[in-house]
Amino acid sequence: MIDLSAGAAHPAQSFGAEVICVGTELLLGEILNSNAQFLAQELAALGIPHYYQTVVGDNVRRLQAAIAIACERSRLLIFTGGLGPTPDDLTTEAIADFFQAPLVERPEVLDDITQKYAARGRVMTDNNRKQALLPQGAAVLANRTGTAPGMIWEARPGLIILTFPGVPSEMQAMWREVAVPFLRSRGFGQAPIYSRTLRFWGITESALAEKVAPLFDLTHPTVAPYAGKGEVRLRVSAKAESEAAAMAAIAPVVEQIQQIAGADYYGQDDDTLASVVGQRLQRAGQTLSIAESCTGGGLGSFLTTVPGSSRYFWGGVVSYDNSVKESLLGVNPDDLANSGAVSATVAEQMAQGVRSRLGTTWGLSITGIAGPDGGSTDKPVGLVYIGLAGPKNQVTSHRFLFGASRGREWIRWLSVCSALDLLRRQLQEP
Amino acid sequence: MIDLSAGAAHPAQSFGAEVICVGTELLLGEILNSNAQFLAQELAALGIPHYYQTVVGDNVRRLQAAIAIACERSRLLIFTGGLGPTPDDLTTEAIADFFQAPLVERPEVLDDITQKYAARGRVMTDNNRKQALLPQGAAVLANRTGTAPGMIWEARPGLIILTFPGVPSEMQAMWREVAVPFLRSRGFGQAPIYSRTLRFWGITESALAEKVAPLFDLTHPTVAPYAGKGEVRLRVSAKAESEAAAMAAIAPVVEQIQQIAGADYYGQDDDTLASVVGQRLQRAGQTLSIAESCTGGGLGSFLTTVPGSSRYFWGGVVSYDNSVKESLLGVNPDDLANSGAVSATVAEQMAQGVRSRLGTTWGLSITGIAGPDGGSTDKPVGLVYIGLAGPKNQVTSHRFLFGASRGREWIRWLSVCSALDLLRRQLQEP
Repeated sequence: MIDLSAGAAHPAQSFGAEVICVGTELLLGEILNSNAQFLAQELAALGIPHYYQTVVGDNVRRLQAAIAIACERSRLLIFTGGLGPTPDDLTTEAIADFFQAPLVERPEVLDDITQKYAARGRVMTDNNRKQALLPQGAAVLANRTGTAPGMIWEARPGLIILTFPGVPSEMQAMWREVAVPFLRSRGFGQAPIYSRTLRFWGITESALAEKVAPLFDLTHPTVAPYAGKGEVRLRVSAKAESEAAAMAAIAPVVEQIQQIAGADYYGQDDDTLASVVGQRLQRAGQTLSIAESCTGGGLGSFLTTVPGSSRYFWGGVVSYDNSVKESLLGVNPDDLANSGAVSATVAEQMAQGVRSRLGTTWGLSITGIAGPDGGSTDKPVGLVYIGLAGPKNQVTSHRFLFGASRGREWIRWLSVCSALDLLRRQLQEP
Repeated sequence: MIDLSAGAAHPAQSFGAEVICVGTELLLGEILNSNAQFLAQELAALGIPHYYQTVVGDNVRRLQAAIAIACERSRLLIFTGGLGPTPDDLTTEAIADFFQAPLVERPEVLDDITQKYAARGRVMTDNNRKQALLPQGAAVLANRTGTAPGMIWEARPGLIILTFPGVPSEMQAMWREVAVPFLRSRGFGQAPIYSRTLRFWGITESALAEKVAPLFDLTHPTVAPYAGKGEVRLRVSAKAESEAAAMAAIAPVVEQIQQIAGADYYGQDDDTLASVVGQRLQRAGQTLSIAESCTGGGLGSFLTTVPGSSRYFWGGVVSYDNSVKESLLGVNPDDLANSGAVSATVAEQMAQGVRSRLGTTWGLSITGIAGPDGGSTDKPVGLVYIGLAGPKNQVTSHRFLFGASRGREWIRWLSVCSALDLLRRQLQEP
């Protein structure tokens, strides 16, 4: 075992959390370590100091070497990965062996796994039995959704170990439902950081940064920009004893930013363009149908990420082939032949066609060239027309040129968001 | 300084590379650590063993503690971040101080920075001067695009240190243009790792693991399982002097796995269910249309991630509201009223309706309850019917129960993939 005389360099009062992600697939670069980011954000939000992250492969010796280092410099070790049923999954065994604790089978875990398999009409294999083994003294950190439970264990006095499966959705649910209340109950995180994330569409990061530049010098709250998937975000954060105290500092700055940004600001925190459009439609008692070409269904898919979207979203047509634009949307074949499928007139006819056929308040359409092939000098990859037909039979179209360099999926995503943003700007704010 | 007696635990011949990402923004979760993934992929491609990644904040003491650990267990330390002009950027200073090397100003770097600022119409600040300081004996790792250069330094005999700025585009260009040739010239990475990822649908990770269990004991190539987004994958990897030699070792094992897995194996590497279905349709000269309810367009969106999918995918209908099922798909209103929208008969009528209206070989439909609301005892959240209408006018439907626990997006994703998988199994293998 490695002898680390790190105590001197790390006085106990500064000990924080360490995230240890286990998985050879991380060291081969096969997956992006989004779990580390999620846990980092959560630790910051809880006000738990977090000084180190370690990634190590599915190898007992190296994992135990990492544990030896971590338990001398941190007092909360958070493991992700390596809890599955295969021989490669060895996080629990490695931890138990390191602290010389015997593994004990937990009947309640075995029952839970058995039931989950049965509910899915499957038979549990012998491999799964090992997922019910936890070190003596550890509490089960239940996994509501998957079969691999984690654990909460005070492996040594003052050293807390949490383990989570590597599947992000399972890990996140377990973190929120079990780990956060546990950590709070144990007095971790005395001065949490609270924050609001403000979301913008239709403005670049540098243009927004220039507009709000003086706010970047604030210290309480702080304002920091970051780029999302095609959108810009600002995070306004304050460290405070209570959420109310933090929000009292944050609210005036949020308001100031909203005024500066105007209509480019669309929402905050968990808002999406789809949820914001949905709220506005629902409030107005209006309905929406869509006609998509290059996005192939992406607009409808995004709209229906919102639970309850059936109250305002009725459906639409994926008119990938021109014949469908004619048959289901009534686009004029001559216009298709003369102007081409990617044109203002076809976008408008698609929006009108779906609106009138489905009988909705609005009809929203997308037609474009997502590439990588199919572009020309006149109509390059990244050219997209969005059509919007409205309640007074008015119809408009808008031309976008997204640029081919970032690829097909980027163009499709920007098309979907730009379509929703166009409609958002037509709908009254709540 | 920490005294690590790790030599015994880490015999010299197994020393590999360690990636050390420096930046408090990583520990706050403000950015995703994509640099670590990039470097991991590159190291694997070069065949340089890579056993650890460390993330540490902008703090000299903790950064030096991480260096102390890393230089005892790795022989190639790759730093990203902390090379900028602000006081927070302290990677170079911390490294030089740790190895007790004086910092020396490099006039060629100062010239380069001055010129870059001038070219952007900006005046260099005093802050930038420190970017020209490198430890005595270190070579400049030039940054063609940004102002922060890195370094290549043999800090101790046999211990190579590379530093890169945190900006991914700069780091990647410097890596490819300078670091890779340097590492090759120094004899790193004689035997790169090549691998094949095999993809499966319709079998659990543990069931597949049991079937192929003996293969997990292989050492050349190695076989390792991992779970993707609802699917299971096996990675077959071999370390070899050439791709041909690696593939000669990998190919027979791949073939063996394919035989064991049968139809549950659907593709490898960059294949997706959408691309595999597309290839088979195209080869057969057949076409597809779709009718989606709870997935709202997700099936079409996934199908059209494949460039050129317009050759076999014609489009379809998003029938989120029942009125659309009647008007655009011809579903019988009595059946909707009696059996409900989520039923075998409606799934079948949706598939038949879209197939006949669009005139395609196949019609594929999805109707289900994605939740979180809308479930009942008879029809719980997660109940999904998939309908498939085929070239001989035959129509079938399949009932799935995905379980509500993992949430709406998970149910929608499994629905999309299960629909494609059903069609895949009807289409002849290429």
